[in-house]
Amino acid sequence: MNEVISLIKNHRSIRKFKNEPVTEQQLNEIISAAQCASTSSNVQAYSVIAATDPALKKQLAELAGNQAYIEECPVFLIWCADLHRLDQVTAGHMAGRESYVDSTENFIVATVDAALAAQTAAVAAESLGLGIVYIGGIRNRIAELSELLNLPELVYPVFGMCLGVPDQEPGIRPRLPVEAVLHRNGYNEERIQEPVQAYDQTMQRYLSERTGGKRDTPWSQIMADRLAEPIRLHMREFLSGKGFMKK
Amino acid sequence: MNEVISLIKNHRSIRKFKNEPVTEQQLNEIISAAQCASTSSNVQAYSVIAATDPALKKQLAELAGNQAYIEECPVFLIWCADLHRLDQVTAGHMAGRESYVDSTENFIVATVDAALAAQTAAVAAESLGLGIVYIGGIRNRIAELSELLNLPELVYPVFGMCLGVPDQEPGIRPRLPVEAVLHRNGYNEERIQEPVQAYDQTMQRYLSERTGGKRDTPWSQIMADRLAEPIRLHMREFLSGKGFMKK
Repeated sequence: MNEVISLIKNHRSIRKFKNEPVTEQQLNEIISAAQCASTSSNVQAYSVIAATDPALKKQLAELAGNQAYIEECPVFLIWCADLHRLDQVTAGHMAGRESYVDSTENFIVATVDAALAAQTAAVAAESLGLGIVYIGGIRNRIAELSELLNLPELVYPVFGMCLGVPDQEPGIRPRLPVEAVLHRNGYNEERIQEPVQAYDQTMQRYLSERTGGKRDTPWSQIMADRLAEPIRLHMREFLSGKGFMKK
Repeated sequence: MNEVISLIKNHRSIRKFKNEPVTEQQLNEIISAAQCASTSSNVQAYSVIAATDPALKKQLAELAGNQAYIEECPVFLIWCADLHRLDQVTAGHMAGRESYVDSTENFIVATVDAALAAQTAAVAAESLGLGIVYIGGIRNRIAELSELLNLPELVYPVFGMCLGVPDQEPGIRPRLPVEAVLHRNGYNEERIQEPVQAYDQTMQRYLSERTGGKRDTPWSQIMADRLAEPIRLHMREFLSGKGFMKK
């Protein structure tokens, strides 16, 4: 295993940070690395907002479900799918042509672009000894959060990311067996039940060890409980209101 | 700049591959590294199909717009957002509860999960001396391609990825200035026009150098031409037909 793969395999989400800054130089290095990720037809349809203002971080933490580490980390990044920049800079070149900026296709392109850049930033940050955690909670009260950050039409916050110097070393959470996610020459339904049963047992042991025997819920049960929760059912309407997926 | 960031900044898409295999060991190392990427609440809502069968790759190349490198690369990966596995393994645990697997929220979660894993695979592959290119063209004839790969309900192919030993060393394409994508404590509309004008000039020089003066279209003009194209307008209906974004 080379050093890059070793770094990648050592990833764990960090939710406790030292009271130390992320320097401007580090931030610039991380974001300029992120920009080198692939992007569909070079559209670069994403933006990232670095929240460093303490009052703002406090508000964002509250909107994202009172996760203290959002307030405590020195830099909280909000990764946005951004079709607004494209819409603005192409306006003078359309020559009366219709724009398909608001297609479902372009929604996917922008969402994927944001994710590819963010994950590249995550690896770059970890290579600098920093820690990160993705925050899906910024979609909890997405309309208020978007207003707070002045997000225009055709921009939506996909996820947040806490960034800082780690002050904890949590265990690495086991993943599904590779044969569950890697199919050969076509989707194979038979790769579902058996690998997941094995993973249920792995996760039961892992949880039990981490909680001193207090919890040992199988993964598929945890997933069922999650799917049964009506989480963020406002997303479709919110995105439509922001001008996405009109076509 | 450390070695990881140096590797990331050295990324360029590879579209010409040597007639050399990607070994099983390399593929397993790449996919197991990809699995270490963050995933929303550990849902791991993605699958990846490795197409190595020559006849299948030929068909996939045709469906993706006759891109020869899909046929020529030793391994063509199809990265899928996969809510089907979750749906299947949670069925026995729902105890009569409604499942929100088909929400727009979960569509985004699965799409992002696939992208985070894929980008981690891309970095891992490049660290092994391999080259990659993302292929959005697999969404061109997405229904036929999904049938060819036996993709069930609640699975869709987000993008493809050619993988192989590089047989070219293309230039690194310049990106937008960092100040265009990195905002501070809120979205700043003023970061759009000026950085993009500077980038238009950068890209004109870059294109002109690469084509011996034959092309020097500004980026914003290229983007306008792209947005004016009715690309993949079938996506919304296709996704709905696959069971996504019902809520």
